[in-house]
Amino acid sequence: MSVTVRELAAWVDGEVAGDPELAIDHARPLADAGPGDITFVEDDRHLHAWHESRASAAVVRPGVPVNGRPLIRVDDPLMAFASILKRMRGDHFTRGAITIHPTACVHPSAVLGDEATIGPFCVVGEGAVIGHRTTLHPGVVVGRNCRIGAESTLYAHVVLYDGCILGERVTIHANSVIGSDGFGYRPHEGKHVKVPQLGHVEIGDDVEIGAATTIDRGTFGATRIGTGTKIDNLVQIGHNVVIGKHCIIVACTAIAGSAMIGDYVVIAAQVGIAGHVTIGAQATLAARCGVTRDLAGGQTYLGFPAIPASEEKRRLASINRLPQLLARVKELESEKVGAAS
Amino acid sequence: MSVTVRELAAWVDGEVAGDPELAIDHARPLADAGPGDITFVEDDRHLHAWHESRASAAVVRPGVPVNGRPLIRVDDPLMAFASILKRMRGDHFTRGAITIHPTACVHPSAVLGDEATIGPFCVVGEGAVIGHRTTLHPGVVVGRNCRIGAESTLYAHVVLYDGCILGERVTIHANSVIGSDGFGYRPHEGKHVKVPQLGHVEIGDDVEIGAATTIDRGTFGATRIGTGTKIDNLVQIGHNVVIGKHCIIVACTAIAGSAMIGDYVVIAAQVGIAGHVTIGAQATLAARCGVTRDLAGGQTYLGFPAIPASEEKRRLASINRLPQLLARVKELESEKVGAAS
Amino acid sequence: MSVTVRELAAWVDGEVAGDPELAIDHARPLADAGPGDITFVEDDRHLHAWHESRASAAVVRPGVPVNGRPLIRVDDPLMAFASILKRMRGDHFTRGAITIHPTACVHPSAVLGDEATIGPFCVVGEGAVIGHRTTLHPGVVVGRNCRIGAESTLYAHVVLYDGCILGERVTIHANSVIGSDGFGYRPHEGKHVKVPQLGHVEIGDDVEIGAATTIDRGTFGATRIGTGTKIDNLVQIGHNVVIGKHCIIVACTAIAGSAMIGDYVVIAAQVGIAGHVTIGAQATLAARCGVTRDLAGGQTYLGFPAIPASEEKRRLASINRLPQLLARVKELESEKVGAAS
Repeated sequence: MSVTVRELAAWVDGEVAGDPELAIDHARPLADAGPGDITFVEDDRHLHAWHESRASAAVVRPGVPVNGRPLIRVDDPLMAFASILKRMRGDHFTRGAITIHPTACVHPSAVLGDEATIGPFCVVGEGAVIGHRTTLHPGVVVGRNCRIGAESTLYAHVVLYDGCILGERVTIHANSVIGSDGFGYRPHEGKHVKVPQLGHVEIGDDVEIGAATTIDRGTFGATRIGTGTKIDNLVQIGHNVVIGKHCIIVACTAIAGSAMIGDYVVIAAQVGIAGHVTIGAQATLAARCGVTRDLAGGQTYLGFPAIPASEEKRRLASINRLPQLLARVKELESEKVGAAS
Repeated sequence: MSVTVRELAAWVDGEVAGDPELAIDHARPLADAGPGDITFVEDDRHLHAWHESRASAAVVRPGVPVNGRPLIRVDDPLMAFASILKRMRGDHFTRGAITIHPTACVHPSAVLGDEATIGPFCVVGEGAVIGHRTTLHPGVVVGRNCRIGAESTLYAHVVLYDGCILGERVTIHANSVIGSDGFGYRPHEGKHVKVPQLGHVEIGDDVEIGAATTIDRGTFGATRIGTGTKIDNLVQIGHNVVIGKHCIIVACTAIAGSAMIGDYVVIAAQVGIAGHVTIGAQATLAARCGVTRDLAGGQTYLGFPAIPASEEKRRLASINRLPQLLARVKELESEKVGAAS
Repeated sequence: MSVTVRELAAWVDGEVAGDPELAIDHARPLADAGPGDITFVEDDRHLHAWHESRASAAVVRPGVPVNGRPLIRVDDPLMAFASILKRMRGDHFTRGAITIHPTACVHPSAVLGDEATIGPFCVVGEGAVIGHRTTLHPGVVVGRNCRIGAESTLYAHVVLYDGCILGERVTIHANSVIGSDGFGYRPHEGKHVKVPQLGHVEIGDDVEIGAATTIDRGTFGATRIGTGTKIDNLVQIGHNVVIGKHCIIVACTAIAGSAMIGDYVVIAAQVGIAGHVTIGAQATLAARCGVTRDLAGGQTYLGFPAIPASEEKRRLASINRLPQLLARVKELESEKVGAAS
């Protein structure tokens, strides 16, 4: 597909600088782009790479000067470039009436919204409700009495246990599990007796969940994920956890049962959060920190056990000075011995 | 479903205090319960919340005084409440003859016990044996010559590679993988040559395994999980590992190849255990500890490398006093300088 | 199946010492072997166990003396034993023409190589290309326009998102996800707006990937895994990551977006690598280390933040001496007080 720079600029409401009639064949990122390609420069630090690149045109921020090759100036070059790439390669998702693949098993009592799409080998249980324009990719299992809001996407092999409730525009990536039993046992005569896990999971609107992530159901009530929260791959969320709105939870983090996470909390990768702790709104947990007690909101925490970043930095600096400290104390002691002799 | 307090008490063999004829519509935990609901108070610390709650009745421990609303007194309020909740909402699992969903692929040589249930899109391999009253949820794959004991439940998309052996009353949650190849390679002329992984996995009776957990097969013999052991979500267990009876292994823990874990060992979340180490019976590993050598049983360990809890606490306390220590040494040094001048 | 020691030796090109006509029924590792079995001794340290074992014969290294029972001497006893075990138990993978299970959904535009095998409940998307002698186990989902090289094996429920490219002889274990969206959002008016993830994943020849591992697609370009690299279970690899050739990445490691890993890098279990860092060729990262900045190749790193092993060992030794250090400083101070009085 060949498109002029002028047309591309019109798609993204950008300002052309340089030759508007140049024909562009592909959209590629800076590292890969060559002749015939349009690329983008997100940050002025990368202008040097653009000058060295053989790409034919670039989407840039306002104010970047022309240097032989045409530019499209926009406020957000990355998002504009993404639009151009999608449109040039013709990503298209046509929809129409409800589409149920002939191999899918949909219980007769299930209710499907307009233009819902149920892929091959999906199983939709008794009493389930699937919103309009929601798509289930191959092999998705939706348990009994689950409710999924409109315009949601469940990728291949996602499993929802019975009774889970998802909002609108929820995305869950492949092989994630929502609503598995919480890890609750009681010792009894040398055995671990299971505490029945009878609750469910409630997920708000606009939540995205990565691949192979697991969210356990509540023991009696709900495990809750707030509106707009984004969760990465291989994250574990225990039973009865309540996560606020618009949180970010990066890969390989584990949140133990009954923890309460406020709104706008940012949790970096490989963090661990103990059971029953409360983390205040707008707290930031640095990668790998381990939370063992309640933390106030609005601050950044580091380390294990997690402490405010300022303290932890002081502590780490001290640790790094330890070898010198040992040497100095040795010296002080030997001088003392020398003085005594 | 409306049930009197008297009837509810009879279900759980409890003692009624207060009005036995009050009608109850729902069972809900304290945080959610309102008028018409029965709830439960597991611990006297929560009696305050019960007094503030608008729930109509509660299951409590013996000795809790009545305060206007009826109580059902039992020794274990949580378990009694779970029974009431399950019965009120009509959880029912009727069974009968063997049920094989018409979409399932069951090899003609496979043997299925009485009242086994094989869900949609399951694959049961050549020579597999499935015990009576065992249930395979949708999409479970059972490899060739696997044997699964009676009354077991494999949730959706669990995969058993060829030759795995499961005991009775085993539960495995969705998307877990049992019997994948161990991670064994040998360097040879600049490449990593795979060591064939020809063993299998043996899982004892009454084992429960969480969602998206992986247990690799032995290289030649078995990877073994002992009777009554409970394993959480996203746990990795390497090839040739032997885990004892009645252990607890919490989420996101990784156990490397050929480690030996004794009976009644408790392993908290995000622990790492090196290959070929031995951990004695009844040891407890605190969250995130990293085991690099053999550990004696009967003790609690912390830290990385893991050491007995008492030592680690002393070490951590020292680290936290480091900034003051640095200041004191500086002072000692400056006084020395002052004395010398 | 009963085979003489002479025949077994011929299978593995080994030298018989002792009775070549002894009949062997099974091949079992040292810990399990008994009468009628052949076993193997990989290392002279295990000769003691062989002497105590009741096995009838053993595969050993050259130079091991006979001690009553026959030996087969070979340069690599483990690999020879693996060959014997596979052949004795009759592992066989007969192939012929293309085999597509009748339940599989293969798009008419997909192209399948000779002797490809598509298992039950697989989905192969529009425009996909599957190499000759490649096997898809049950429930594998291959997205649109994916290309899989020859002689590859995808175990049950592996999911390839659209556009992923796999080399020849690639093995991916059950429930892994290749090509899920990277974790990229931008704050906008109090919400997290998704950065479209439009790239793909490219995996070189001879790569093996464990179970329940996740590899995200590039934002615009590719996430790349180099030829011969081996990745264990439950590993997370972020978007735009580039991993070199012949690397080893052990279980539960997380590599954040846009990290660059050189050739022959060894990454032990539970490591974390921050986004955008570069790790030089032939670096070794010890278990659990956390990489926060660029690391030169050819060295071993430990700790969090990761530093060269020599420094970290010194640092750890200092930390362990802290309690004594505190005591010594206290003593110095009290003496000073004593001297002043």
